[in-house]
Amino acid sequence: MRTSDLIMAKREGQAHSREDIFNFIFDYVGGSVPDYQVSAWLMAVCWRGMTTSETTALTEAMVESGESLNLDEFAHSVDKHSTGGVGDKTTLVLAPLLASCGATVAKMSGRGLGHTGGTIDKLESIPGFNSSLSEEAFLHQARSVGIVISGQSKNLAPADGLMYALRDVTATVQSHPLIASSIMSKKLAGGAKSIILDVKVGSGTFVKTISEATTLARTMMDIGKHAGRRMRAVLTDMVEPLGLTIGNAIEVREAIECLQGKGSSQLRNLCLSLAAELLATSGLSINENLITKTLDSGVAYEQFERWILAQGGNPDTATNLELAPDQLLIRAPVTGIITELDAFSLGRAIETLGGGRSAKTDEIDFGVGAQLHAKVGDPVIMGEPVVTLYHRGGRGLEAAAEHTQGAIKIKDSGEPRETVLKVIKS
Amino acid sequence: MRTSDLIMAKREGQAHSREDIFNFIFDYVGGSVPDYQVSAWLMAVCWRGMTTSETTALTEAMVESGESLNLDEFAHSVDKHSTGGVGDKTTLVLAPLLASCGATVAKMSGRGLGHTGGTIDKLESIPGFNSSLSEEAFLHQARSVGIVISGQSKNLAPADGLMYALRDVTATVQSHPLIASSIMSKKLAGGAKSIILDVKVGSGTFVKTISEATTLARTMMDIGKHAGRRMRAVLTDMVEPLGLTIGNAIEVREAIECLQGKGSSQLRNLCLSLAAELLATSGLSINENLITKTLDSGVAYEQFERWILAQGGNPDTATNLELAPDQLLIRAPVTGIITELDAFSLGRAIETLGGGRSAKTDEIDFGVGAQLHAKVGDPVIMGEPVVTLYHRGGRGLEAAAEHTQGAIKIKDSGEPRETVLKVIKS
Repeated sequence: MRTSDLIMAKREGQAHSREDIFNFIFDYVGGSVPDYQVSAWLMAVCWRGMTTSETTALTEAMVESGESLNLDEFAHSVDKHSTGGVGDKTTLVLAPLLASCGATVAKMSGRGLGHTGGTIDKLESIPGFNSSLSEEAFLHQARSVGIVISGQSKNLAPADGLMYALRDVTATVQSHPLIASSIMSKKLAGGAKSIILDVKVGSGTFVKTISEATTLARTMMDIGKHAGRRMRAVLTDMVEPLGLTIGNAIEVREAIECLQGKGSSQLRNLCLSLAAELLATSGLSINENLITKTLDSGVAYEQFERWILAQGGNPDTATNLELAPDQLLIRAPVTGIITELDAFSLGRAIETLGGGRSAKTDEIDFGVGAQLHAKVGDPVIMGEPVVTLYHRGGRGLEAAAEHTQGAIKIKDSGEPRETVLKVIKS
Repeated sequence: MRTSDLIMAKREGQAHSREDIFNFIFDYVGGSVPDYQVSAWLMAVCWRGMTTSETTALTEAMVESGESLNLDEFAHSVDKHSTGGVGDKTTLVLAPLLASCGATVAKMSGRGLGHTGGTIDKLESIPGFNSSLSEEAFLHQARSVGIVISGQSKNLAPADGLMYALRDVTATVQSHPLIASSIMSKKLAGGAKSIILDVKVGSGTFVKTISEATTLARTMMDIGKHAGRRMRAVLTDMVEPLGLTIGNAIEVREAIECLQGKGSSQLRNLCLSLAAELLATSGLSINENLITKTLDSGVAYEQFERWILAQGGNPDTATNLELAPDQLLIRAPVTGIITELDAFSLGRAIETLGGGRSAKTDEIDFGVGAQLHAKVGDPVIMGEPVVTLYHRGGRGLEAAAEHTQGAIKIKDSGEPRETVLKVIKS
């Protein structure tokens, strides 16, 4: 089929055959289909959607466009994907917790863009941390430490890399089949047997409703199951940020507090839930009390220390990473109950301060960030600090303060938010 | 506005400002907006459409992306655009008819693609005919002969040239605002004061219903009127081909017969209608009897001779252009009344024989073509020839015969088709 006919078929709402999708993707990676045809097709997909069969074929074609990691030697290889949010440092807690329970966490993570953060950026705020590992070093560390987290390899699902860069500049990022195939191509190529998806719902992410999140989660689970993976999904709240910090260094500090049995109960509970679901999926029958004990006893923290050390960081430095020197207190304008801490606005505040990337090539300031002193449902008194912004003076401070003030709503009454909205087991 | 934000706005169904459209088009022509962003935007336009203000702004931006012809020295400069059909040789008759009535026909015409023919191809089937004229030679001939028809200049509306090439390979040709702005940008840059649009309706063209054609015609008329042009539109039937011939040389022969008072009454009547409407629009108050007399008396034919001669052709040769030597008769399978002669299938038959272009770079065989011996509404006896295909043996003959046979429907009763379906005067 000629490429223009393929585009026309999608424009008219027809479903592509598996063969047509494979040819299209391989020809794109091979250079014989130009970007301008792919971007028209991408917009037609945003318009008309794709069936599960098409999305599965697209994912598999993207996996087969490059290499895949072979993790077969590990009895319980596990992976987690979060669809991205504000203040989401779960991987930093979850990875050592899972490894302490006998699973192997050999995963690749992404960088942040826009108002959302990325695990690799957070890890790189630890001086010396090396996220660029050879395949040999990666597998060696998985064997010896039980955890390794590196940046995305360009050899894995290169079609996704090409296509994502194109989607980013053609307003075609937001499409369920394109999101699902992009995420799952990297997860499948990453090689883990059991995968949990943390699908965020709310203002801080691109999925606004539970029903939309359920559809997206099921699409991704179907793709994974079709490829022989054990899949589970958890839908979690992203109307307010996760935990009490947003930024890079400051989130590492909060993750370490969590591993030391302190800090936000929201973060702790979510990590325990994700660990329980993923371990159950992977066939490691560890009861929830034991998982909690692994966290509370410091065993998981010791695992964290071994991991950071193995990748070139100093765990002691990590515990007390330097923050930006100046602080701006954002205070409660009235007395009442916090009913809203808008994740998107708070994420934008940190991006504006330089803690996130507006463009992919932006340098990140690891030290800027926000400390929340209260969460939705908490009472505050007029004038009491609700958020502390860590900053370095001028750069974007005024806009960041405005974003932060705009994020806070206080009323006469309000309830805390639920974090785990739904678990999808099959 | 960043280009990706512009694409997102259109993706979300928002209308662009005039300024944003101008910047987008100028940046595209200037090379700072890449094809892959434009093609995503084009598909978003196919999806979401454009308002009349947007379509007008797009047209004007495309006009201003290049040069425009100045025809102000001519009191009655006129132009016609047909949206493309099968067997449409009206320009060859209409141009000398209009010039004989005092109008100046200084126009650019296109080439054929797919199942539809193009005026320039037809003219180039006359040996020696030169369709590449300098602006100076073009204007000189307009002054001295009253008619000049050349191929599209690349200096006129270059943004449309770039964008059309992109639309052609990204399945984004079919979109009313894109079609309207493409056509009108060339018409406005072409400089004529009065313009008639012949919007074809039926299987042989991309507009299938009168209501769709009316919308498209009104959009184009609005653009033209906004730019100070006198506009009129005629919707005409393209369910069966126009006249009795399809091809290049064979259509020139039919046009000349019409100019000599012979041949298809359908072609003759349409040319007389178009001439009457366009002359009235242009302010030349010539009554219809006089127009008919101009055609019947041979005055228009003499004008045709002068025109062909001026552009390097020999009118005597044109009268008797050579056709492909072999003939295949397609006969009526039953006795009855012809109820269908499907224009699309017949156009495809000629394209298959080599008389049209499947790709833009294809060479055309001017000599192949079809002679219809009957029209819809005519009685035929089983075994009687309905169509003669002129061909050169092997090439595509079997497929062409199938297309032709498939185009013919014969039933017990049927009526001739109306040619002029609607006239839109304002």
